Amino acid sequence: MSEKFYIVPAERHNQLVREAYQHRGYSEDEAAQAARFSDLAAEHGIRTHNAIKALHLDHLFGSAAGGCTPGAEIVVKDSRFAASQIWDANKKLGQATAYAAVDKAIELADQYGIGQVSVDNAFHYLWGGGYVMEAAKRGYIAYTNCTAALAEVVPFMGKFPTLGTNPHSWGFPTTDAIGFPIVIDWATSVIAMGRVQQFQREGTQLPLNAAVDKDGQPTTDPNAVNALMPFGAHKGYGLSLINEIVGAFIGGSLPTIRSRQAPEGEKRTPAFYFQVIHPEAMSGGAFAMGRNQSENVKAVIDDILGHGNENCLLPGQLEAKWADRVKKAGGLLFSEAEVKAFNEIAVECGATPWDYINEFKVEA
Amino acid sequence: MSEKFYIVPAERHNQLVREAYQHRGYSEDEAAQAARFSDLAAEHGIRTHNAIKALHLDHLFGSAAGGCTPGAEIVVKDSRFAASQIWDANKKLGQATAYAAVDKAIELADQYGIGQVSVDNAFHYLWGGGYVMEAAKRGYIAYTNCTAALAEVVPFMGKFPTLGTNPHSWGFPTTDAIGFPIVIDWATSVIAMGRVQQFQREGTQLPLNAAVDKDGQPTTDPNAVNALMPFGAHKGYGLSLINEIVGAFIGGSLPTIRSRQAPEGEKRTPAFYFQVIHPEAMSGGAFAMGRNQSENVKAVIDDILGHGNENCLLPGQLEAKWADRVKKAGGLLFSEAEVKAFNEIAVECGATPWDYINEFKVEA
Repeated sequence: MSEKFYIVPAERHNQLVREAYQHRGYSEDEAAQAARFSDLAAEHGIRTHNAIKALHLDHLFGSAAGGCTPGAEIVVKDSRFAASQIWDANKKLGQATAYAAVDKAIELADQYGIGQVSVDNAFHYLWGGGYVMEAAKRGYIAYTNCTAALAEVVPFMGKFPTLGTNPHSWGFPTTDAIGFPIVIDWATSVIAMGRVQQFQREGTQLPLNAAVDKDGQPTTDPNAVNALMPFGAHKGYGLSLINEIVGAFIGGSLPTIRSRQAPEGEKRTPAFYFQVIHPEAMSGGAFAMGRNQSENVKAVIDDILGHGNENCLLPGQLEAKWADRVKKAGGLLFSEAEVKAFNEIAVECGATPWDYINEFKVEA
Repeated sequence: MSEKFYIVPAERHNQLVREAYQHRGYSEDEAAQAARFSDLAAEHGIRTHNAIKALHLDHLFGSAAGGCTPGAEIVVKDSRFAASQIWDANKKLGQATAYAAVDKAIELADQYGIGQVSVDNAFHYLWGGGYVMEAAKRGYIAYTNCTAALAEVVPFMGKFPTLGTNPHSWGFPTTDAIGFPIVIDWATSVIAMGRVQQFQREGTQLPLNAAVDKDGQPTTDPNAVNALMPFGAHKGYGLSLINEIVGAFIGGSLPTIRSRQAPEGEKRTPAFYFQVIHPEAMSGGAFAMGRNQSENVKAVIDDILGHGNENCLLPGQLEAKWADRVKKAGGLLFSEAEVKAFNEIAVECGATPWDYINEFKVEA
C-alpha cells in the first residue's frame, strides 16, 4: 500500500504560511513563528496540526472570533521566585507565545537547573510535542501542558464533557543516544473527535469505551456520539484533570465555558504551562561501566528494547522517521487534498498558489 | 457487604514499626521515618504499601539482601544549579530519603518557585503518592517518580518485561478548595502483579490485555502470566518509559538487572526524582469573578464534576474518605490477617504483640 505525497520546499511552504498570517493581521514576527511551527509539524508528519489546521483553528476560535489578538504584547508579571516566570499573553498567537516561553524556560534552566513559565490568557498552541521536541533537540528535558480549547471528554464515570483531550508533552534530549529526541505526547481521550468524524464518513463502529451518547451512556455508534471518554479509565481521567487543575492555579476558569460564550466577569482563555530541566542538573555523575550520561541513557533504552522487544517503537520514532523522509525528498510532504487546501489559503490571502510540485511516493 | 477491621491506635502501630526497623539495624531516626510513612499509608487505606509490605520488601530486597544499608548517610553532590540538588543516597532507607528530599525540594520551591531533587543509589520508597500528598497538605504542588525495583512490564508490542509498574505521582494543594489534596498516583500497568496472584488463588481469568505469557503473547490465564502489559497501550508504555529515562539521566542503570544479580561494574539501585512547585509561583493573580487562587481551583473542580458528573470521584478522594474513617474510629484500621501479620513482626523483633484491639466495622 502506498499513499501519494507532493514535495513542497519548506521555504515555499513557510512563505505562504507567513503571508496567510500577515493577511489576517499578525505581525511579521508572529507570522514567522507560525510558519516555523507549521514547518516543524509538517517535517514530522503531524498532519492533524499542520498549517491548514492552524489557520482553520485561528478562523474558528482565534483572530476571527476574538480568541486571539494579532500583535498582542506579552506582559511578564512580577514574581519573587527566581526560577519561575508568570506571563499574561493577552491572547497573543499561541505558537509565538509558546516558543518565547520555552526560550525563557531554557534560560532559567541554564541558571537554576529547572525553570518554569506559566502563561495566562493564552490562545491554542496546537501541538505541544513540537515545543518539547525543539527543546530536546537543543539538549534539554522539557514538559508542557495546557488547558483545552473545548471540553469534549467526560470524567471517568461521568456523563457530560467537562475535560479536554489535551496531552501532557514530554521531550528528552536523546539525539546523541539514539538519533532522535524521545517525545511523549498523546491525547488523554481514547480517540480524538476528528476520528469520530472519520468513523461517521466511513460508516464504521467506534472502539469500545471511547465515547458516550447524549445520555452519558457508552456508545460505539459514531453518529450517536456526544462526548469522548478518557483513555485508561480513571488513569487518563487523572491526567486530563491535571491540565485543568494546573490551568486553574495559573488563572484559567471553567472548562465548560472556554472558547464559548462566557458570562460577564468570566474568563474563556486557555492557560499554558512550560517546564525545562537542564540534564546536568539531575546527573549524579556516577554511571555504571564508566558510561557518560548519554551513553547511560542509550544503555537503558537498549535494555528496554532488547530481549525480544526489538520491534517496539519509541515515542517520537515515527516522527523522526517522517523527518528522514522529508530530508530525503528535499521538501515537506503533503497529500493532494492538503495541497489543494494550501492553494485555497493562497487565494484567500492573495498569494501565489503552488503551481509546480514534484510527486513523491511514500509507502504507508 | 461489610469487612471487619480492628482499631489500632496510631501510637501503638508506630511503636511496633519503629521497634521492627531498629531490630533490623536502622537508626532511631530512620525507624521513626519508616513508622511515620507506614502510619500515613495506613491512615489513607493504602493496604498494598503498609508497614507489613514495607518490612517484607526490606527483607526481600533491602537490609537482608544488601539493597538497603541501615544508618547510611546521604551525600549531597556539588551542583552549579541553585534550584536543583543531586543526592547519592548510598542505599539509605527509602522512606527517610524521600521525606528528606521532599523537605529540600520544598525549601528550594520557597525560594525559586520550583525545586528538584534527584536521588541516585536509592532504595524503594514504597508509595509515591504519600510523599506528594504530604507536600500537598503543606500547600505545595509536588511530583515524584522512581525506577522500579523489578522489571515486570513489557513495552507496548513487546514480549519481555523490561519496565516497572511504577507510577508517576502528582499532589495538588486543594484542601482549602475541596477538603483534601488531589493525589494522582496509579500503576503504569493494567494490573499489579499482586492482583495476578489474587486471580490465581481465586481461579478467575484476568482482564484482556493485562498480561503476557512466556512467549510474550497476551493471556487471561493467571497461571500462564510471565509479565504485565502497560495500561492504555502506547500511552501507559510512554509513561512507564519516562521513569526509566529519568532514572537513566540521574544514574540508574539497566532495568533488567535492578535488584537482581548485576555484573561487576554495573549498578542495580533505583533512582528517585522529586519536584515541588510553590503555587504562588504559577499564579497569574487574575482569576475570574474576583476569586482567589483556591476559590478558582474550587470553581474549576465544581464545573468538572457538575452537569451530571456529580457521582464521579476525584483522585485522592477514597484515600481522604479512609482517613475520615480512621479519625472517627480513633485509630488505624487493620483486618484480622493484618493484625496477625503485625503480631508476627512483634514476635520477630521481641516487641509486645497487640493484646487488646477494639473491633470496628467498615462497610465495603
